[in-house]
Amino acid sequence: MNFLKLKKMSSKLPLPPYYAVIFTSKLKKKSLAYEEMAHKMLKLAQKQKGFLGMESAREEIGITVSYWKDLESIKNWKENTAHQLAQKLGKNEWYAAYRVRIAKVERDYEFF
Amino acid sequence: MNFLKLKKMSSKLPLPPYYAVIFTSKLKKKSLAYEEMAHKMLKLAQKQKGFLGMESAREEIGITVSYWKDLESIKNWKENTAHQLAQKLGKNEWYAAYRVRIAKVERDYEFF
Repeated sequence: MNFLKLKKMSSKLPLPPYYAVIFTSKLKKKSLAYEEMAHKMLKLAQKQKGFLGMESAREEIGITVSYWKDLESIKNWKENTAHQLAQKLGKNEWYAAYRVRIAKVERDYEFF
Repeated sequence: MNFLKLKKMSSKLPLPPYYAVIFTSKLKKKSLAYEEMAHKMLKLAQKQKGFLGMESAREEIGITVSYWKDLESIKNWKENTAHQLAQKLGKNEWYAAYRVRIAKVERDYEFF
């Protein structure tokens, strides 16, 4: 299972406005169980209504930015039963610290 | 010069609302010149009016999220002369692709 393979730049997002969830975290330590859960959550998030994309990288800290159509979609994802279990495991087992920021993307521009 | 040493979770940000600039990028290849410029730009950004913090990680893609008091601060930083030069070098030399998203942080919560 290689979660890294799925980490690429999201493209084909709609024009703003849409929402970003900026999730920054420090792991107690890397583990296969964590990697597997992260992969599982990505696959599950992709099936949610209003999911637009996800980008992720980890060095000293991990940054995962997921993109959503609206606040309702974010709320539904937060309350998803399997995701709730993952969040609980995250708090209890894997994360030394994390922060979640919910932000409205107002503008974007790119260079390719 | 180790840019990684400076990559840690921003703390002590003010309560929302404030702004986030989500910068995602793919490098053509890693280089010392790029690392040095990234370090220099972080140091310079920290001196700008309205700068609140910066978080960064890179694997397949790089994600740098910088936090700012308001849109005016972001505009001033974008137009900063030294930063303009770095942006030009970035486009010409280092980045295969990048995307910039400007987002208003409406809510945050944390676990420590």
